[in-house]
Amino acid sequence: MSNENISRRGLMLVLSSPSGAGKTTLSRRLLESDRNISLSVSATTRAMRPGEVHGKDYHFLKMEEFEAWLGEGKFLEHAMVFGNRYGTPSHLVTDELGAGRDVLFDIDWQGTQQLKEKMRDDLVSIFILPPSHDELERRLKTRAQDSDEIVAGRMAKAADEISHWPEYDYVVVNTDVEKALADIQAILNAERLRRSRQTGISEFVGRLI
Amino acid sequence: MSNENISRRGLMLVLSSPSGAGKTTLSRRLLESDRNISLSVSATTRAMRPGEVHGKDYHFLKMEEFEAWLGEGKFLEHAMVFGNRYGTPSHLVTDELGAGRDVLFDIDWQGTQQLKEKMRDDLVSIFILPPSHDELERRLKTRAQDSDEIVAGRMAKAADEISHWPEYDYVVVNTDVEKALADIQAILNAERLRRSRQTGISEFVGRLI
Repeated sequence: MSNENISRRGLMLVLSSPSGAGKTTLSRRLLESDRNISLSVSATTRAMRPGEVHGKDYHFLKMEEFEAWLGEGKFLEHAMVFGNRYGTPSHLVTDELGAGRDVLFDIDWQGTQQLKEKMRDDLVSIFILPPSHDELERRLKTRAQDSDEIVAGRMAKAADEISHWPEYDYVVVNTDVEKALADIQAILNAERLRRSRQTGISEFVGRLI
Repeated sequence: MSNENISRRGLMLVLSSPSGAGKTTLSRRLLESDRNISLSVSATTRAMRPGEVHGKDYHFLKMEEFEAWLGEGKFLEHAMVFGNRYGTPSHLVTDELGAGRDVLFDIDWQGTQQLKEKMRDDLVSIFILPPSHDELERRLKTRAQDSDEIVAGRMAKAADEISHWPEYDYVVVNTDVEKALADIQAILNAERLRRSRQTGISEFVGRLI
């Protein structure tokens, strides 16, 4: 859906949402449907789990390595979760963008803020909302035995994440997965056609006139 | 392709191109394919032609009326062509936008500049390029008896219009009409999902959490 004779810079597509909004399914479906976008591979200090592949699931780093990279400013965003470090190495992303390939980020509002500070022009951010209060509650009640307190706690966490929608470029309501996927695909395809990303237009126009 | 439960402000979609790039066909096809966008109806002082309908083809105004409106700042853009005045009355456009309907403008770079000055946030501009020099020349040679000078004159005019591509938000190359139409539809649908146009999100989120 880009202009095939014009070279372009890739873009960074961020999908954020509260849990229960269907983001994981939408990310997977988008990656399956479009060969020019791939999921950003994070670096982490947590132990590799059975079946995981270095460089595919994560870049597994020792804590000293991670902190050395951090000191050298090699991360676009990073976070500490349960004592493990996670981060997005910038050189992996900029290599993809320079080659005209798009990179998908499935991150929360805090990660999005960090990316925005460093890569404003390359970033396209979409916030996904659930269709209704009742549907959100239903999706957060994952097991029959979940107590009201547990579900209320998840709702409060979802409400906190949702409060960050004004920081995003686009908002998509996931009432129907097929429609929400089509919406995200339309945004991705449109952003590929943005004049500012099509680095080869001058050259193309030079041959035209 | 917008979020059906969230009210939104309409947008102004501008298509510009040199003649020979297929803009007229693309505009017609877009209007046929999407019920929520309609062509902007201009005002003019030229005489009504047989078959034309006031308020549909044009708003036909007397020169005194047009100039009175002009004095009152009632036009978003205006131009004089062969002694006749043409212009886009702002109230007609703002009524549509306020009702959540989109308006299509088939105008040149000068009209686009004028709209941009007054309606920056509502404007989405697309520049359509022909696929190649040879194809552009072929399309501009409309009749077999067109002299080389006539075609060269048209090419020079096209080159002048094309030089304004850097002033547009998006650039679409019309190699194939179906693909170019899909590109324009993707841009329109994506721009409808822009957070800033979805005026009802706050209210929607209020019911959600």
